[in-house]
Amino acid sequence: MFDASSHPLEGAALHKGLPETGNDLLAEVSLPAAVIHEAFLAHNLAWMQRFANEHGARLAPHGKTTMAPALFHRQLAAGAWGITLATAPQCRAAFAHGVKRLLMANQLVGEANMAIVARLIDEGADFYCVVDSAANVRQLARYFGAREQRLQVLVELGVDGGRCGCRDQDEVLALGELVDSEPALVLAGLEGYEGVVYGEDPVRAVRDYAWHLVEAAQALDHDGLIEARAPLITASGSAWYDLVAEVFREARLAGHFVPVLRPGCYVVHDHGIYRAAQRDVMGRRPELDRGLHPALEVFAQVLSLPEPGLAVVGLGKRDIGHDQLPLLLRRYREGGMANRTLPVEGWRVEKLMDQHAFVHVPDDDFPETRNGEVRIGDIIAFGISHPCLTFDKWRRLCRVNERLEVLEVLETCF
Amino acid sequence: MFDASSHPLEGAALHKGLPETGNDLLAEVSLPAAVIHEAFLAHNLAWMQRFANEHGARLAPHGKTTMAPALFHRQLAAGAWGITLATAPQCRAAFAHGVKRLLMANQLVGEANMAIVARLIDEGADFYCVVDSAANVRQLARYFGAREQRLQVLVELGVDGGRCGCRDQDEVLALGELVDSEPALVLAGLEGYEGVVYGEDPVRAVRDYAWHLVEAAQALDHDGLIEARAPLITASGSAWYDLVAEVFREARLAGHFVPVLRPGCYVVHDHGIYRAAQRDVMGRRPELDRGLHPALEVFAQVLSLPEPGLAVVGLGKRDIGHDQLPLLLRRYREGGMANRTLPVEGWRVEKLMDQHAFVHVPDDDFPETRNGEVRIGDIIAFGISHPCLTFDKWRRLCRVNERLEVLEVLETCF
Repeated sequence: MFDASSHPLEGAALHKGLPETGNDLLAEVSLPAAVIHEAFLAHNLAWMQRFANEHGARLAPHGKTTMAPALFHRQLAAGAWGITLATAPQCRAAFAHGVKRLLMANQLVGEANMAIVARLIDEGADFYCVVDSAANVRQLARYFGAREQRLQVLVELGVDGGRCGCRDQDEVLALGELVDSEPALVLAGLEGYEGVVYGEDPVRAVRDYAWHLVEAAQALDHDGLIEARAPLITASGSAWYDLVAEVFREARLAGHFVPVLRPGCYVVHDHGIYRAAQRDVMGRRPELDRGLHPALEVFAQVLSLPEPGLAVVGLGKRDIGHDQLPLLLRRYREGGMANRTLPVEGWRVEKLMDQHAFVHVPDDDFPETRNGEVRIGDIIAFGISHPCLTFDKWRRLCRVNERLEVLEVLETCF
Repeated sequence: MFDASSHPLEGAALHKGLPETGNDLLAEVSLPAAVIHEAFLAHNLAWMQRFANEHGARLAPHGKTTMAPALFHRQLAAGAWGITLATAPQCRAAFAHGVKRLLMANQLVGEANMAIVARLIDEGADFYCVVDSAANVRQLARYFGAREQRLQVLVELGVDGGRCGCRDQDEVLALGELVDSEPALVLAGLEGYEGVVYGEDPVRAVRDYAWHLVEAAQALDHDGLIEARAPLITASGSAWYDLVAEVFREARLAGHFVPVLRPGCYVVHDHGIYRAAQRDVMGRRPELDRGLHPALEVFAQVLSLPEPGLAVVGLGKRDIGHDQLPLLLRRYREGGMANRTLPVEGWRVEKLMDQHAFVHVPDDDFPETRNGEVRIGDIIAFGISHPCLTFDKWRRLCRVNERLEVLEVLETCF
């Protein structure tokens, strides 16, 4: 029943979601499909770049969120200074698609990963990674020294009970001295991540942490340990970037230091945790204009209406992030733009399996022979949270206009 | 900072995990990496095929689990009758890799998905899908009738409170009559899925459901509604396949009906929910030899030891299924085969972020300058549950021998 030598379809045909530019999303694209709305995407790209500019900071959006080179290009074209990434293979993928400045906001561990980076440096990448231990500094110095290469590193400052990073300024300075003593390493500045800072008053905890970053960076600089002419200071995810930017601005870092912000999720935003976080940002900063819009949705079809109250939809954990249940946004009829805004009273997502979502539909909307609110083949647009764990389900996403025509098929590089 | 026209690396270099055949997993492969142990894989392939044979059933392993054509080929070479899949794009991917008999254990909804299947049928696929509503039967009849094609369908029987499927035999027979009246459709048998059957006594509930399947299939056959010469009757996931096989055998279906079992996870098994389910199978069937072995692991490295008690590992939700936290299995030193079996007292995975795992390590094992039990760069093998949501994180997996040399790089088609 098989013949391994026969490949009647082309390589591009092998993966789910095979839309083409010009397709009508509601009639011509195999669903489920991940969809990015151009108007909101363009708005978010411009909004965050303007935010960074107004705070005298550079933007290095975290690319791990999307791993979509076409979006990296949009971010860079909008004015980004570089792209942040989390692993050596992610850096390789971004560089292969023309991104020259790579900020790996993570430790570089393992000779196979170091080999990837050594090649990127050879080929001209402006690469930075993070260190937080003497052991790793020595591993890197040995590896890159043996190849007569120089590796740019940032010392990481974390917090007690947090994730990676030195736990205080003394550790930062001691590690800075060790880096300074290793000819293969160039100390380029300081890195942190406020997304793992917690406290009873989180705003205060994040601001305090940002000030610790400033002081540690200034101490490294004061001790003459930073080799780079324009030392970097960088932090910020997608929830507290406003506080980090504010502290960097208050500290008047720009001019000598290069402050770099690294939010990732902003580019498509979301309908859950980051929407809530952004509401807090706008509450703290009422002078900011409009804010971000959720731009990423997943469209899927009703497969079955097997009993009153239940619509089974062809959308599962294989298609959408499942830290939170997806949200119901709109219901379309296949082939037509007319839609009904969801959720209406009583509609809710109850469960997600690998390939199916269970949507509760009120008895009044069921079966399809009654009021016709739901039919087999109906298309539902779902909202997501958070975007990172939805992007990595897709090798291709559809960028669409307001008529839901496919403007571009975006490839991902996970 | 970017140049979209420059692609200094080849296409294959763009995605995470780029191992090569012959690589030493512990020294030459960028980690994290997903790993399949050949000895356990071979055992599982043979074990489940023998189980099906001994019960007079055919095996159509669920391919959605792995979406790895090389594993489909192994399953077919071991004697499988066909491959089960969940969506039209999955069927397209399997067919493109030489799988000719495709059992889509799901509803075929949406014209774009029907178009994929129409092309597969044109190209010679022996394709089956499932129906559970008059609306869908009419959609399919219209679409395939307009193309002068005939589509083989199975009526689905579900359960109240379950997922898709007719809710009783009367609905099955009514739908069977409708299929029979549509010239474009061929009724080929009956399908069910016992994985959504619940009850106080689940063994009894699953057996009862399997008997309902038998009776419904026999009723369809008795009424002359099944057009296929050898009608199919098919059910079973990876948890209750023994009960389904037992009932199909007790009903003496083989000879006229073709009983088809569809477990998917068995091929690599797991360290969590399916291991527990298999323990139950072995408890119910003590005469069965040995059982299945977990064959899929994810290897990752310690990135940071920032404070007593905490090892941060480069393994996240981007790399491994996270319905359950991954399990600690073994700790290696980079480059060497010597290892320590985990978890030892006090070691446990506490949290998973997108790209990081937090592993609690007892203070005695920390810092690395103390007893040396954990160092930056140490490699930890993690066990997973369940496999479907780990496979879909990877475009390439490493099949390894007992010396952890890469025997083959398996591509996936998600």
